[in-house]
Amino acid sequence: MKIRIGHGFDLHRLEPGHKLIVGGEHLEHDRGCDAHSDGDVVYHAVTDAILGALAQQDIGQLFPDNDPKWKGADSYIFVEEAVKRMQQAGYAIGNMDITIILQRPKLSPHKDEIRNNLAKLLQCNLDQVNIKGKTHEKVDSLGENRSIACHVVTTLIAS
Amino acid sequence: MKIRIGHGFDLHRLEPGHKLIVGGEHLEHDRGCDAHSDGDVVYHAVTDAILGALAQQDIGQLFPDNDPKWKGADSYIFVEEAVKRMQQAGYAIGNMDITIILQRPKLSPHKDEIRNNLAKLLQCNLDQVNIKGKTHEKVDSLGENRSIACHVVTTLIAS
Amino acid sequence: MKIRIGHGFDLHRLEPGHKLIVGGEHLEHDRGCDAHSDGDVVYHAVTDAILGALAQQDIGQLFPDNDPKWKGADSYIFVEEAVKRMQQAGYAIGNMDITIILQRPKLSPHKDEIRNNLAKLLQCNLDQVNIKGKTHEKVDSLGENRSIACHVVTTLIAS
Repeated sequence: MKIRIGHGFDLHRLEPGHKLIVGGEHLEHDRGCDAHSDGDVVYHAVTDAILGALAQQDIGQLFPDNDPKWKGADSYIFVEEAVKRMQQAGYAIGNMDITIILQRPKLSPHKDEIRNNLAKLLQCNLDQVNIKGKTHEKVDSLGENRSIACHVVTTLIAS
Repeated sequence: MKIRIGHGFDLHRLEPGHKLIVGGEHLEHDRGCDAHSDGDVVYHAVTDAILGALAQQDIGQLFPDNDPKWKGADSYIFVEEAVKRMQQAGYAIGNMDITIILQRPKLSPHKDEIRNNLAKLLQCNLDQVNIKGKTHEKVDSLGENRSIACHVVTTLIAS
Repeated sequence: MKIRIGHGFDLHRLEPGHKLIVGGEHLEHDRGCDAHSDGDVVYHAVTDAILGALAQQDIGQLFPDNDPKWKGADSYIFVEEAVKRMQQAGYAIGNMDITIILQRPKLSPHKDEIRNNLAKLLQCNLDQVNIKGKTHEKVDSLGENRSIACHVVTTLIAS
């Protein structure tokens, strides 16, 4: 069996006047991410975890944030590109575990949809993707609702 | 070989007037965790890593923190439940690596005991569990001794 | 196949009057790490990830920061010691994925050199080591350029 491991981390600032998009879902909130793309920390960290497992460096190199091409981009295209590269390298998702850190609003009503979105994009079964939500206990920028972060670990298995 | 990967993260605020329980051990300190349960970040992150590897979502869903049943609960019961589910799914611990971030007090006098506690709960050998301690260099809530955090990665192997 | 997983995390404070050494490379900057050794967060987190995968505890126990022997030490010696122990235990690197969090300066001009340094130290191929750079979006000590952090996940495969 050939197996590779990948790690993804992303954090975005939350500011009034922007949409909050998490794992492809729009969460109702008084603020969101002022990013070059749609600021979806989950899709960004997932992209980085897959590229990382393939040793193909990072999302910032593939999709530079000063390239007008990606201005306001829906981030599922980043995941799609990573999945295409994974398949070209002869790998498929083993399993992926995702931890989203967000003080407010509650993630729980959105977790099933986010998981569905990811299983489709990653072309795997639901039981190969897991979503966990955590608060940051009111401390630091995450706890004060000034940012949102995501940690991802994944395995890729040679198919 | 069937293998699954899991990731756990937990952070709790430290405040005067509470006990500090870490990996089942009571650490003498001037503050501790004001949590619904005993606030053991290590047991919580370990639980989440195992549930995550099984794609069974998270500790907050299994043990809601607004359920009086878990008020002041000793967190080893959360690990036990995760281990039971792991065994029902046909898996055992491959190995688990744990990083505890705590500015004060020193973890080193407690590491062997925490590791013993975990090996028993996880029903594995000592060389399958590792504990690392880090400070946060006096910055942010972790470095200012206002919080404690734990990162866990684990593999589960089909038994 | 015998496989083990390891996790490394390290953070150092950035302060004027010190050199900034990252993955063995000197980055031009107005500040750097005031650490007992040279403060290389990447080499430290890599060392901890390997030791963690071997369940041999942590860098602080092998190389105590109150031991004058390691005062100003070049941190590649810590990675070398971890690799020696890995080989003694009968393992080699599967693959390693590294995320460096640094607000400024840009890591991209240094990533190839850091990766070369690591592949040599880890005695593996370039495609077994991956480096990602992230900012921390101007929030918290990382985003305010007052610290630098590194997350590592790695697999070790029995050779």
